Amino acid sequence: MELLKRTIIEKGKIIGDDIVKVDAFINHQIDTFLLDQIGKEIKRLFNDKKITKILTIETSGIPFACLAAIHLNYIPVVFAKKQKSAILSDECHTANVFSFTKKQEYQISVDKNYLSTSDQILIIDDFLANGEAAKGLIKVANEAGAHIVGFCSIIEKSFQSGRQNIWSDYPNIEIKSLASIKAIDNNQILFNED
Amino acid sequence: MELLKRTIIEKGKIIGDDIVKVDAFINHQIDTFLLDQIGKEIKRLFNDKKITKILTIETSGIPFACLAAIHLNYIPVVFAKKQKSAILSDECHTANVFSFTKKQEYQISVDKNYLSTSDQILIIDDFLANGEAAKGLIKVANEAGAHIVGFCSIIEKSFQSGRQNIWSDYPNIEIKSLASIKAIDNNQILFNED
Repeated sequence: MELLKRTIIEKGKIIGDDIVKVDAFINHQIDTFLLDQIGKEIKRLFNDKKITKILTIETSGIPFACLAAIHLNYIPVVFAKKQKSAILSDECHTANVFSFTKKQEYQISVDKNYLSTSDQILIIDDFLANGEAAKGLIKVANEAGAHIVGFCSIIEKSFQSGRQNIWSDYPNIEIKSLASIKAIDNNQILFNED
Repeated sequence: MELLKRTIIEKGKIIGDDIVKVDAFINHQIDTFLLDQIGKEIKRLFNDKKITKILTIETSGIPFACLAAIHLNYIPVVFAKKQKSAILSDECHTANVFSFTKKQEYQISVDKNYLSTSDQILIIDDFLANGEAAKGLIKVANEAGAHIVGFCSIIEKSFQSGRQNIWSDYPNIEIKSLASIKAIDNNQILFNED
């Protein structure tokens, strides 16, 4: 997605050779024109699937999930909640997720009322890096017996193992990214072709 | 806002005489048609102010801030981040906020790059109950030297002291709510007139 790549180049902050900070338009301040365009692009990519619900995780995935859902004819969004300590509850589907950024495990949970066997679910998250959050969301949707239509990340870092990590456990999941970073080299961001 | 009130009555879960759970359409699952309508209503309420930015707080305020911002001609959204332990940083405006729900204090912070003296800021949050989060956001915006145009909550519980609590410290803040709950009585939700 050209506008997204251009914004990453113009406003992303490169830290070392593997981090791009996108606080200026995605993670802390949100560029809402870009957000709306991203919603439209996700609709374009997944319009032929009969998606009934979007599943994401707090916090930064939520705006993108909402705009995609609005453009996909106002389907509902469900966001998984994060907590540091494990909560056992009959009312929730849960998964443990290891955060490489924070170097700790946390638990994600979704109320059983909000996912069902008749759901056709698109999973959305802001980043695909190690794939841990995505795998947690897939586990939760599977536990609910829902059908997963695909996973869409806004920004993928293809030089990390997220895609392979997801496919090693869930080989049939369709994965799409709106911008896929191949490498950060010499203070420059290199993208994969669409 | 009629659609919001109707949804609260139809899908809210009353717990005791002071809690309405809105997990089914605001806090965990999001009704995105309602979300879009809420964005339009906030635009209608604040269209005459020259708002340059919306400030909110993670997590549940973010979708409403984004849709309001999109309808207000794609202005940026900034969301304050929450952390349990205080972080001292020259790079952030911070405020301490006491959560009555969780019975603990947390810190909110906003990167100084994303608020400026030329900003005309609308503050949005999902609930106005005790007013603590709102006061934290007002403090942060004031610290940045920004002008605050108003505070808008999606749901106000007017039988709690939020509005008075804000006005006792900041008497000039304009406060609006899209649905204002007067009381929960006999398992029924009673609204204030618009």
